[in-house]
Amino acid sequence: MGDICLSHFDSRGRARMVDISKKDDSIREAVARGEVIMSPETLNIIAGGTAAKGDVLGVARLAGIMAAKKTQELIPLTHLISLTSVAVDFRLQPPARVEIQARVRTVGKTGAEMEALTAVSVAALTIYDMCKAVDRSMVIQNIRLISKSGGKSGEFWREGEEKWE
Amino acid sequence: MGDICLSHFDSRGRARMVDISKKDDSIREAVARGEVIMSPETLNIIAGGTAAKGDVLGVARLAGIMAAKKTQELIPLTHLISLTSVAVDFRLQPPARVEIQARVRTVGKTGAEMEALTAVSVAALTIYDMCKAVDRSMVIQNIRLISKSGGKSGEFWREGEEKWE
Amino acid sequence: MGDICLSHFDSRGRARMVDISKKDDSIREAVARGEVIMSPETLNIIAGGTAAKGDVLGVARLAGIMAAKKTQELIPLTHLISLTSVAVDFRLQPPARVEIQARVRTVGKTGAEMEALTAVSVAALTIYDMCKAVDRSMVIQNIRLISKSGGKSGEFWREGEEKWE
Amino acid sequence: MGDICLSHFDSRGRARMVDISKKDDSIREAVARGEVIMSPETLNIIAGGTAAKGDVLGVARLAGIMAAKKTQELIPLTHLISLTSVAVDFRLQPPARVEIQARVRTVGKTGAEMEALTAVSVAALTIYDMCKAVDRSMVIQNIRLISKSGGKSGEFWREGEEKWE
Amino acid sequence: MGDICLSHFDSRGRARMVDISKKDDSIREAVARGEVIMSPETLNIIAGGTAAKGDVLGVARLAGIMAAKKTQELIPLTHLISLTSVAVDFRLQPPARVEIQARVRTVGKTGAEMEALTAVSVAALTIYDMCKAVDRSMVIQNIRLISKSGGKSGEFWREGEEKWE
Amino acid sequence: MGDICLSHFDSRGRARMVDISKKDDSIREAVARGEVIMSPETLNIIAGGTAAKGDVLGVARLAGIMAAKKTQELIPLTHLISLTSVAVDFRLQPPARVEIQARVRTVGKTGAEMEALTAVSVAALTIYDMCKAVDRSMVIQNIRLISKSGGKSGEFWREGEEKWE
Repeated sequence: MGDICLSHFDSRGRARMVDISKKDDSIREAVARGEVIMSPETLNIIAGGTAAKGDVLGVARLAGIMAAKKTQELIPLTHLISLTSVAVDFRLQPPARVEIQARVRTVGKTGAEMEALTAVSVAALTIYDMCKAVDRSMVIQNIRLISKSGGKSGEFWREGEEKWE
Repeated sequence: MGDICLSHFDSRGRARMVDISKKDDSIREAVARGEVIMSPETLNIIAGGTAAKGDVLGVARLAGIMAAKKTQELIPLTHLISLTSVAVDFRLQPPARVEIQARVRTVGKTGAEMEALTAVSVAALTIYDMCKAVDRSMVIQNIRLISKSGGKSGEFWREGEEKWE
Repeated sequence: MGDICLSHFDSRGRARMVDISKKDDSIREAVARGEVIMSPETLNIIAGGTAAKGDVLGVARLAGIMAAKKTQELIPLTHLISLTSVAVDFRLQPPARVEIQARVRTVGKTGAEMEALTAVSVAALTIYDMCKAVDRSMVIQNIRLISKSGGKSGEFWREGEEKWE
Repeated sequence: MGDICLSHFDSRGRARMVDISKKDDSIREAVARGEVIMSPETLNIIAGGTAAKGDVLGVARLAGIMAAKKTQELIPLTHLISLTSVAVDFRLQPPARVEIQARVRTVGKTGAEMEALTAVSVAALTIYDMCKAVDRSMVIQNIRLISKSGGKSGEFWREGEEKWE
Repeated sequence: MGDICLSHFDSRGRARMVDISKKDDSIREAVARGEVIMSPETLNIIAGGTAAKGDVLGVARLAGIMAAKKTQELIPLTHLISLTSVAVDFRLQPPARVEIQARVRTVGKTGAEMEALTAVSVAALTIYDMCKAVDRSMVIQNIRLISKSGGKSGEFWREGEEKWE
Repeated sequence: MGDICLSHFDSRGRARMVDISKKDDSIREAVARGEVIMSPETLNIIAGGTAAKGDVLGVARLAGIMAAKKTQELIPLTHLISLTSVAVDFRLQPPARVEIQARVRTVGKTGAEMEALTAVSVAALTIYDMCKAVDRSMVIQNIRLISKSGGKSGEFWREGEEKWE
């Protein structure tokens, strides 16, 4: 394994922010997904959420969008990038699963994978926070990168994943 | 389900920060855990991490600790609490799994569940960030509350979980 | 006027954070209000806002709550206080006015006036942001303290203001 | 009204950060203004502010400038933009009014209206904070966009406003 | 040296936030100082600073006060503490030295040394920033703790330091 | 001295963020250094730091990198710049000195001096924080700009400084 180096460390193992000064600006997109597993009763409460009863997913969506903008404060060696688009979406999968998707775009020198994954994670944590008084056994699952495009490393699409309509 | 109300919404469904003005201060602790699933090669790189080669878990630990302090900025309806202790720990489970645990304490009017879960999530995201150049298919799994103590709602210990020595 | 001193300056005119070390902790509450004046068409769009069409006030409410928690970062000489409750509310006053109210509580050594006023201001700015593409002439008006209780300086209720039901 | 859509929501009413990936970079400027109404005594204190007595407007100016840089943290769906210039200015209008103006510039894909309005709002809140011990009845008034230039939507100048010399 | 342990690491060398859950609240104070060495010309410009010419020290003072409130975001293993008082002061020592002092107080379970040192450091950096266009060779010197009181560890006064009148 | 103006103030002495709208983007680099003076015992503890005993410099390095990204929040009149590279390094100089160096790069309209100096300052403060329980008399010394390149003002190299290998 000695041959493989992680780019976030220099040759002596010192953590650093990787130099992207000479990379070109391009439009880059990343999509990430994750899930919150919960009791069917909790899912029903979320499903019934409206402006009148309390919109759990609306709060979680905003939390995810705002967290995407904070990624570089949270993940130590990430670069500040200016996101040009963020969308966070949900799919209820009864009886016991809420799926979360974040799609982010940037025009810059490095991709937005971490921003998409952070948006999903914080949206999931926010769902947990809002429902924890009725269901403390929820589990956040399966946070993963779905796709990535733009930049030199080319297209990535995780096998076995379908597009959300 | 109409009878169950989420405490983060008032009777008309409006999101709010729950009133804890009259709750007593007490020592509260929360423990959360999660996992990053990766290729055996990636796990080996992490396992070999030292001051000389690059200490992935050292970076992830700090990221988790610092994120715990940012929880109230990330999760919209959480209260600011002053954490009196934060510890983030890892267990390598070859061939392909890193386990993460965060234990946080506070002296205050509300618990620190969200802080523990946030620390685990951001530590996991940081591991992902540092290894993504060699393994884009990592998945963050199984983020969950393990235990909780202090305050009126009493002790919680998730069934089937063991103590980390 | 030479006799009146602002407490945020010392005797030589140097700005400082006022010393509250010896003040007692008590439950304190502050209520602030403000308004956004807009075209009747814009008000109608907001009034029609639902989970299906776009919930402007839901977004503004969250923005106000989260901003209350950031007050001490924004207003240079304020103390960090731990808010124990934040609620932000709206009243549509056709044809052309949205009223905003923030009610905050804290248990601490100093009041939460600035937190309530900041929540109202940021909720108003967020309404402006979301509607500016259709109405650039909106005006934010009448941001003011309505009431204050707790602490040594006693109760304050602004004359001529009514309670929101 | 069903035909008018707010761009911050998609066709199903879900909040999002609008996609500006394909917009061109250009120099953009925005000017906003607002007022704090106060007692003549309070205005006199501010007017007498010097390095020796306490410079209320100097503190408020810095608070406004720093807040402009935080706009994207405060207003949920705004993009991060890099401000290339921020100036905050005041005019005393005896007997009882302080006028505030913020002028901001950016080179980027979207305008800086919200940054200018946020700078004015936080400068006003800071004046309130510094004077509230002597005058709790101050009111923040008339926060509005004055002008906007750059970008595709063209020039905007609010009718009836004059240039500050 | 093997016997001396730094409290920020556990017995296996893992960084952590030290547990202060059981420490008592008390009033604690810390004073720190530092210096900026510059050319006599630069010192003269600062000395001439007034509301009319540009108040370098006024800006640096505010920056120092606001930075004290951000200490826990900057220094990874520090606890969030609520500062009850912050004062930043300067002494011009011609021909070529500006001295900075920060005095902070808190009521809590741990001291405010780092907050005082951070306030001094950021005030010094701000002076550097404002004067760097005319003097790039300034040096920040001698940042140190002067005194500390409150808490169990007792009084500390650095030898050879005098009180500022 | 009346003829020299600091660019952070306008002709009436009002602080402002300098207008860089028309400056060209270019690759810019800045290097800063500083030192922490400590007892030989403290230096020995740091020198012995490993993954097993506690890696003081690893924590300080990350703190410095993350602080560089926060510069614009700390220094009031700085512009937000997107750093394309950050590296923080240390040299132990027995018996009693730790040297710190930060090298940062950006592609933008203004230099990154303040980011390099902030990284050094916060790395130094973090070393202080981690060792203060065993050595309260440490002093942070000699924080200075070493070099600067890119942009119109041309190359700067501080006389008498050598390159770190």
